[in-house]
Amino acid sequence: MTNDSNLPHEIVSAIQSVVGAGPLALHEPRFNGNEWLYLKECLDSSVVSSIGKFVDRFEVELASYLGAKYAVAVVSGTAALHVALRLAGVTQGHEVLLPALTFIATANAVTYCGATPHFVDSEESSLGMDPGALREYLATATIVQGGCCINRLTGRVISAMIPMHTFGHPVAIDELLAVAKDFHLHLIEDAAEALGSTVGGRHAGTFGLMGALSFNGNKTITTGGGGAIVTDSIRLKEHAKHLITTAKTPHRWNYFHDEVGYNYRLPNLNAALGCAQLEQLPSFLADKRRLFSEYLSSLKKVKGVRLVAEPPGCLSNYWLQTLLLDEAFSSQLDDVLEFTNNVGLMTRPAWTLMHRLPIFSRAPRAPLGVAESLARRIINIPSSAGLLPKGVEKV
Amino acid sequence: MTNDSNLPHEIVSAIQSVVGAGPLALHEPRFNGNEWLYLKECLDSSVVSSIGKFVDRFEVELASYLGAKYAVAVVSGTAALHVALRLAGVTQGHEVLLPALTFIATANAVTYCGATPHFVDSEESSLGMDPGALREYLATATIVQGGCCINRLTGRVISAMIPMHTFGHPVAIDELLAVAKDFHLHLIEDAAEALGSTVGGRHAGTFGLMGALSFNGNKTITTGGGGAIVTDSIRLKEHAKHLITTAKTPHRWNYFHDEVGYNYRLPNLNAALGCAQLEQLPSFLADKRRLFSEYLSSLKKVKGVRLVAEPPGCLSNYWLQTLLLDEAFSSQLDDVLEFTNNVGLMTRPAWTLMHRLPIFSRAPRAPLGVAESLARRIINIPSSAGLLPKGVEKV
Repeated sequence: MTNDSNLPHEIVSAIQSVVGAGPLALHEPRFNGNEWLYLKECLDSSVVSSIGKFVDRFEVELASYLGAKYAVAVVSGTAALHVALRLAGVTQGHEVLLPALTFIATANAVTYCGATPHFVDSEESSLGMDPGALREYLATATIVQGGCCINRLTGRVISAMIPMHTFGHPVAIDELLAVAKDFHLHLIEDAAEALGSTVGGRHAGTFGLMGALSFNGNKTITTGGGGAIVTDSIRLKEHAKHLITTAKTPHRWNYFHDEVGYNYRLPNLNAALGCAQLEQLPSFLADKRRLFSEYLSSLKKVKGVRLVAEPPGCLSNYWLQTLLLDEAFSSQLDDVLEFTNNVGLMTRPAWTLMHRLPIFSRAPRAPLGVAESLARRIINIPSSAGLLPKGVEKV
Repeated sequence: MTNDSNLPHEIVSAIQSVVGAGPLALHEPRFNGNEWLYLKECLDSSVVSSIGKFVDRFEVELASYLGAKYAVAVVSGTAALHVALRLAGVTQGHEVLLPALTFIATANAVTYCGATPHFVDSEESSLGMDPGALREYLATATIVQGGCCINRLTGRVISAMIPMHTFGHPVAIDELLAVAKDFHLHLIEDAAEALGSTVGGRHAGTFGLMGALSFNGNKTITTGGGGAIVTDSIRLKEHAKHLITTAKTPHRWNYFHDEVGYNYRLPNLNAALGCAQLEQLPSFLADKRRLFSEYLSSLKKVKGVRLVAEPPGCLSNYWLQTLLLDEAFSSQLDDVLEFTNNVGLMTRPAWTLMHRLPIFSRAPRAPLGVAESLARRIINIPSSAGLLPKGVEKV
């Protein structure tokens, strides 16, 4: 056995020295709080559907936690992105900039608006959109005319960009906001994975015109399935609530709908779970941070791999703990995935880059060298908040 | 006070003689079964999201109840319609026939596919699509060419029709299937309101290529928010499951999506509620039928109004108990709505007819005389399964 082929074994040893033998999922929820109490209260009130006090409460407490003015609860992170894009004016014939390295929902939401995704590169430090490369690309590939950014090649309006906080690790959002401003783009923040992450003390999801969060079962907190739109604009908040409740206008009994809307409101039952989960978020984040630090020291000894750490001035929620193979070891990605999963440690690579999917192969794109490299080297490892014994430092 | 102006008072007296003084909602859920047990089991298993045993169980038990081969659980009735239409091949530039007298979701789902709703008339007996009028209309307004039904006026393909069981009352589905066959249209059944209704002993939702059900909080059974696609085709069932889970292809770890999909899967938490509710469905239906019969005798004495009853050979689930004013009394619709709601009896008129909404005012349509008449005369009255004391006949 060569030195190289030891990598899978070394990684497994390093992981197991922190979290034990397994089997372990990539990310599991934890229900140690008031979940039971609130679900019971919800059932006893007979209000399980979309009008109910837990929905209101979840929205208020979520916004308060984030330091945002408003949060609007919806059925999924995908729905949150869809509505945010529509409210940003993204429509038929537009293009929207997003990283090639993202989950399919970001690109799908663009297509739901009749628009075309336009893929851009990521940077190694944050795994997210590279503001420098983006600025350089837009300077040559687009022209700003009458307050609109136009793709020189396709002639289409580029109306928005969607930076995404990859696996919860904060993207360079301040620099991206500056690019968005200079090129007249709305910035919608895909914070689906980043609840609890901050940049300069400010929460992911609160930087753009609107932010989108997800509370799917695999996320830091869960509502079963769910998401939220975050905004400081009362107009956007009200319009979002209108759109997600079939755009029905208020009336004592008449059914009148003034635009094409959706049935995207989060049920009260799911919001009840969310209220209980939100109370535990600080402890989940602390546990995930502790897990990061344990993994960091354990993996320090393994040559050819490093653990992704939060950029300076930022806090990652460490939703997923991300290994990055050195380029020289990237040929062993599949071996590591095979071996870890075979021994019961659930690991996952990056998503297939969006432009590699046949459905998006003809979409416009910038040079994607860094995203291509990252996709060969990313491995996410077991990351649940509950992996370490509570409050006990591992010796 | 004229004879005419007594109608609101007479209706209130008739309703209150059956269900008491109120206040009463239009439709409230009842949670007297295993809801609590199953939600607890769901939490204890830590599986609240979209992969979980309650989702599988709900789908199997729902299909079995309906006598269908497959049911696929989704987040809403709207999502069920959207996916069903897409699977029927409805796409950009198509038209889809639906009643003008329907809830907005039916029309919205058509627009999500990039298609245009084409509104047709209803019949007084069922409140649903009129097969005779439809056949006559299509014979002059369309031409069948190369196996496609073409709108002569717009030149667009009409690819599908969506009959809807209005308020749960069964539509003339057999006759509509014959029209669909003759004009080469896929028939998608909007059974959102009709769980438990039957035509010739066969369940609503199982007649068309696919059926769509809803389990919103106001429906006969609820999952908080939710819906299902019903089909006998294993190919459509598999494709539906694929589309609602982001069209991800199966692989041990790779993320590959082979078409634009959705995040529409029902969470396990909501399915747990659904399993408990489904167990109680027969008793809910019996109670609603008993309520119908009480209302029927009580309202018999009121001149100018009748209670909508199931057509011969059909069973209505009586989701909503529907009053129909005589045409001569239709000018009193608003008075009745005002008075009933003021005394705490929640009543609701028909939906604004789809072609009366500005968003659909330019959509193609057949003559809609009966729908216009019905919209002036429909009043739904308090209809919850729990309104009468359990198993005790009212004296």
